Amino acid sequence: MQIRIIATGGTFDKEYNELNGELFFKDTHIADMLRLGRSHVDVAVESLMMIDSLQMTDADRQLILGRCRDVPEERIVITHGTDTMELTAAVLGAGLSGKTVVLTGAMVPYTFGSSDGIFNLGTALAFAQTLAAGVYVAMNGRYFLWNAVRKNRSKGVFESVARSEETAG
Amino acid sequence: MQIRIIATGGTFDKEYNELNGELFFKDTHIADMLRLGRSHVDVAVESLMMIDSLQMTDADRQLILGRCRDVPEERIVITHGTDTMELTAAVLGAGLSGKTVVLTGAMVPYTFGSSDGIFNLGTALAFAQTLAAGVYVAMNGRYFLWNAVRKNRSKGVFESVARSEETAG
Amino acid sequence: MQIRIIATGGTFDKEYNELNGELFFKDTHIADMLRLGRSHVDVAVESLMMIDSLQMTDADRQLILGRCRDVPEERIVITHGTDTMELTAAVLGAGLSGKTVVLTGAMVPYTFGSSDGIFNLGTALAFAQTLAAGVYVAMNGRYFLWNAVRKNRSKGVFESVARSEETAG
Amino acid sequence: MQIRIIATGGTFDKEYNELNGELFFKDTHIADMLRLGRSHVDVAVESLMMIDSLQMTDADRQLILGRCRDVPEERIVITHGTDTMELTAAVLGAGLSGKTVVLTGAMVPYTFGSSDGIFNLGTALAFAQTLAAGVYVAMNGRYFLWNAVRKNRSKGVFESVARSEETAG
Repeated sequence: MQIRIIATGGTFDKEYNELNGELFFKDTHIADMLRLGRSHVDVAVESLMMIDSLQMTDADRQLILGRCRDVPEERIVITHGTDTMELTAAVLGAGLSGKTVVLTGAMVPYTFGSSDGIFNLGTALAFAQTLAAGVYVAMNGRYFLWNAVRKNRSKGVFESVARSEETAG
Repeated sequence: MQIRIIATGGTFDKEYNELNGELFFKDTHIADMLRLGRSHVDVAVESLMMIDSLQMTDADRQLILGRCRDVPEERIVITHGTDTMELTAAVLGAGLSGKTVVLTGAMVPYTFGSSDGIFNLGTALAFAQTLAAGVYVAMNGRYFLWNAVRKNRSKGVFESVARSEETAG
Repeated sequence: MQIRIIATGGTFDKEYNELNGELFFKDTHIADMLRLGRSHVDVAVESLMMIDSLQMTDADRQLILGRCRDVPEERIVITHGTDTMELTAAVLGAGLSGKTVVLTGAMVPYTFGSSDGIFNLGTALAFAQTLAAGVYVAMNGRYFLWNAVRKNRSKGVFESVARSEETAG
Repeated sequence: MQIRIIATGGTFDKEYNELNGELFFKDTHIADMLRLGRSHVDVAVESLMMIDSLQMTDADRQLILGRCRDVPEERIVITHGTDTMELTAAVLGAGLSGKTVVLTGAMVPYTFGSSDGIFNLGTALAFAQTLAAGVYVAMNGRYFLWNAVRKNRSKGVFESVARSEETAG
């Protein structure tokens, strides 16, 4: 059972530009992180886009949805900025069926010392191997159904919300 | 749903003694690791023993088994040295029922820069939330049933083996 | 021989705010860094200001100059943003005599994994113990007289320039 | 002014073997460390031996002495295990003249998270650029003349001792 990992950017993959003091994207660090974790999960990694999730458009989300449909794998991990992770999860949740998709990200870039990225990637890979078909967010060690999660921006933590009536499967 | 985390030692929790250049145990780093992972999983952490798994005796394994039975939680993560993890898993697998127990560890101490510990703890916590009752080893991003796993010592990797006839559930 | 360490901020002491993705100042990390370096140099550490050196005003520089005059120590290390380090060095070089002052900083915040901060602090402390009275910049493992240094912004490296005629001692 | 850096091993360059849990030597990390420090000091790095300083023989020390004489540079940094650093310093101090030699090391391997190695390398490079001809130990942010230093093994700290009469220059 191979798992597809689709990188889209987010804090997870940001780096520090020491010439101007700004954060930017170069490449995804997923391969490095899997090496650090001594992962032997059978994965195919692809970098679909490398953007801040606040810049993510509807077209980008449709691209992600299309990619989830097109790849042969039935189990998918998506790395994503945390700010709009619930929006992308909603698009995937409404538009996809028969696949297990787990979105994850990080509050601190992987390249910084204190990142939660490697922990989150571990949980996401594990949830992707074990959860039934559906779209989930994996953050803070927990998993949430796509229509029952929100990021608490003041605390920087993902939490459960009552499942939205109109969208629940 | 609370998860019990039982620390028993292993490379996971070893530290470097800068006075004599030897590795030793002080306290478990699980609380630090959960903080780094921004974990909001409901957990109770206890340090049952702090030993190298090569030094672990049958009595120690019975102690771990007894503790798994006694704690109120039905989902348990055990951090453990990798060298005899499969032995302890076998004792638990044969002696315990109705609980989900996930053993994990690390190839490199958490306090060293290049540890797989935080990744492994992430996967173990996720597997403990999602797998059915049973005893598992979570290493290298994967999970293995207690009677179908062995550590490949020359590669430092856990791999599947044909499930042992006499012990398979 | 006690050395005064005066923190003024700069990239050196920036931290990542995981709630909004911006860099900010809290406290100086000099005490942590000295602990990491197992330093037994006799030092007095003070945090005079905690600002980005691009925001530093003439008044701020006069404050630093005054502080260098007032402290009893004859050897001083100043941590400072790299963008205007040469400007502060020039103010100190023109206004101070009889003391050894070494300015240093970092291209990457200490709290990020790949910081040059601890290396630079080591060099600055060593130069402060050995150089004659004068004002110096210590970056990239080297030291430069205050009137013979400039930051090459495109390379992110400090380099020697011909000593300015009018200011040279 | 080029500086010669001679690596001889020691805790500084030890690595963790995750297959057997033992520390071992592969290559020196000096190039990596200089890169981390964004060093632009003009250096030539060589790895003369890669051993624990407790295993260092008189022949090894003569080899180091010979190498210090032979290299064209007048300023030399030697990385060395801390346990017998003062012995090698004494051999060099008695047998070498006209060159500035600075020995340094680390209490914790560079590859571990909490190493003092990069701080020490910074101080050693700075001392090598500024101190007069002589043989010195640079540890704990300080420098010591070769005949006035000893490692306090119970504290893991280098400290001054009264200069030995018979050997003082």
